[in-house]
Amino acid sequence: MRNVSLAAVQFRMGWNRDENVATAERLVREAAARGANVVLIPELFETPYFCAVQDRAYYDLALPIDGHPTIERFRRVAAELKLVLPVSVFERSGQARFNTLAVIDADGGIAGRYRKSHIPQAPGYEEKYYFSPGDSGFNPIETAYGRIGVAICWDQWFPEAARALVLKGAEFLLYPTAIGSEPATPELDSMEHWRIVMRGHAGANMVPVVAANRTGNETVGGVAMSFYGSSFIADHVGALAAGAGRTGEAVLVHEVDLDACRTYREAWGCFRDRRPDLYGALATLDGGHGARA
Amino acid sequence: MRNVSLAAVQFRMGWNRDENVATAERLVREAAARGANVVLIPELFETPYFCAVQDRAYYDLALPIDGHPTIERFRRVAAELKLVLPVSVFERSGQARFNTLAVIDADGGIAGRYRKSHIPQAPGYEEKYYFSPGDSGFNPIETAYGRIGVAICWDQWFPEAARALVLKGAEFLLYPTAIGSEPATPELDSMEHWRIVMRGHAGANMVPVVAANRTGNETVGGVAMSFYGSSFIADHVGALAAGAGRTGEAVLVHEVDLDACRTYREAWGCFRDRRPDLYGALATLDGGHGARA
Repeated sequence: MRNVSLAAVQFRMGWNRDENVATAERLVREAAARGANVVLIPELFETPYFCAVQDRAYYDLALPIDGHPTIERFRRVAAELKLVLPVSVFERSGQARFNTLAVIDADGGIAGRYRKSHIPQAPGYEEKYYFSPGDSGFNPIETAYGRIGVAICWDQWFPEAARALVLKGAEFLLYPTAIGSEPATPELDSMEHWRIVMRGHAGANMVPVVAANRTGNETVGGVAMSFYGSSFIADHVGALAAGAGRTGEAVLVHEVDLDACRTYREAWGCFRDRRPDLYGALATLDGGHGARA
Repeated sequence: MRNVSLAAVQFRMGWNRDENVATAERLVREAAARGANVVLIPELFETPYFCAVQDRAYYDLALPIDGHPTIERFRRVAAELKLVLPVSVFERSGQARFNTLAVIDADGGIAGRYRKSHIPQAPGYEEKYYFSPGDSGFNPIETAYGRIGVAICWDQWFPEAARALVLKGAEFLLYPTAIGSEPATPELDSMEHWRIVMRGHAGANMVPVVAANRTGNETVGGVAMSFYGSSFIADHVGALAAGAGRTGEAVLVHEVDLDACRTYREAWGCFRDRRPDLYGALATLDGGHGARA
């Protein structure tokens, strides 16, 4: 038995960075008090979701990872509470900017970093304007509580990312998220779609999955967004083990047995029976229809 | 609008091949009467699931595809009712045997064939004893009712198969199935796991998915199996559009609009934002841990 207690927190963010960070810390402490070992905070929680619009002024929100004040603060929290804490920030690195996760280990050290690979671009989610597609690839990060697979928001829609992480040894997957209304299609509610895709990753790869989403209404540059919360933890067969509501703060905590997940994964046999010789289409953008045909 | 009515049928099979085929035809006709254009029958429906044990005698159940009596019979049914009918058979081809699907087009012609790629091996599911891993790859089949992605049972657990089919143009996915109890772990009920993984494929690829499973108790060579039915149709966001019970015959019919699915898939943007440069691990069996490291 190798039990690990996974947690997700959700809350609403405003333009006061200190307040957002303080709220995150309060909820992280609440999760720790409830036994959590790993606590996931939503994507880009220091500010409102500025990607709702394309505005060069928001480039200035990006900071270098080294010495980043929010990461430094949570390094102290992690060391104090012996937590693994992935912290989502807007990273500036040389001339480039990335949507980055710094994974803090339970001793306060940096266990690893991940730069968001899949970048969306749609009304209300103008991320290609802000972030270069990440170059870190899908590599599990060793921590005090297991080999963690991290990816960020839009990455959660790609079965390839989940599969690559688990093939390389990830024992559970974490997705900090910012998703809600769609300004171009106000009638669209993607919440259940969002959940079912990640529950599918959990079931197909037989690993627990945690998603932490923001809540609340935000208006940035005249664009009104409503984030739908619904943070959740799925078990290794994709069942919903814990789920938050669409609004309001939440702290979800769920214990998993990583050894039992491994035994199940091995007994089920999928990772023995894969056919990479038949997966060539996945290495293309167009399935081989076009230039390669 | 390009509406297509998808159907799944489920029933129990015994050792009388004619009776099983007649039951299948009766249910296919019922689906057609309810407006179905494409009707999916469970895997290897001509006989009990002989793969419950390893017995050389069952090798003799395999027949060549050309002139196969069950396929010929359903070619006539398909032409009469203008149906697309994928028919699951145990194929003998030269010295090899395959778990094969012949896809009959609405004019009674053979639109294409698919040989099951991923072959399970576990107590009660001794398929590696009977079938060579299929060599046809994942290629959509053009029919009167759209480009169909077909795969068979164990294939349904592999996100790579679904993704490859949709990348190559499949507009919906069909999975004939034989799944139920696990003789090695009698307490295990995989039904919800089974559904959530395929609902995940639907949601991640934004295509409808149909699964037709057998029902009933069968004892083959002293091994008792209980197939759990629960055939279903998921829509393009992975929602359960229709679902059968665990026991008893069922005919599920659900209409989808393939143009609306395509519009949704394009608007959502995932197929624009994939990162094949980061998916190298999927081309390996071990994620690059071993010989390639």
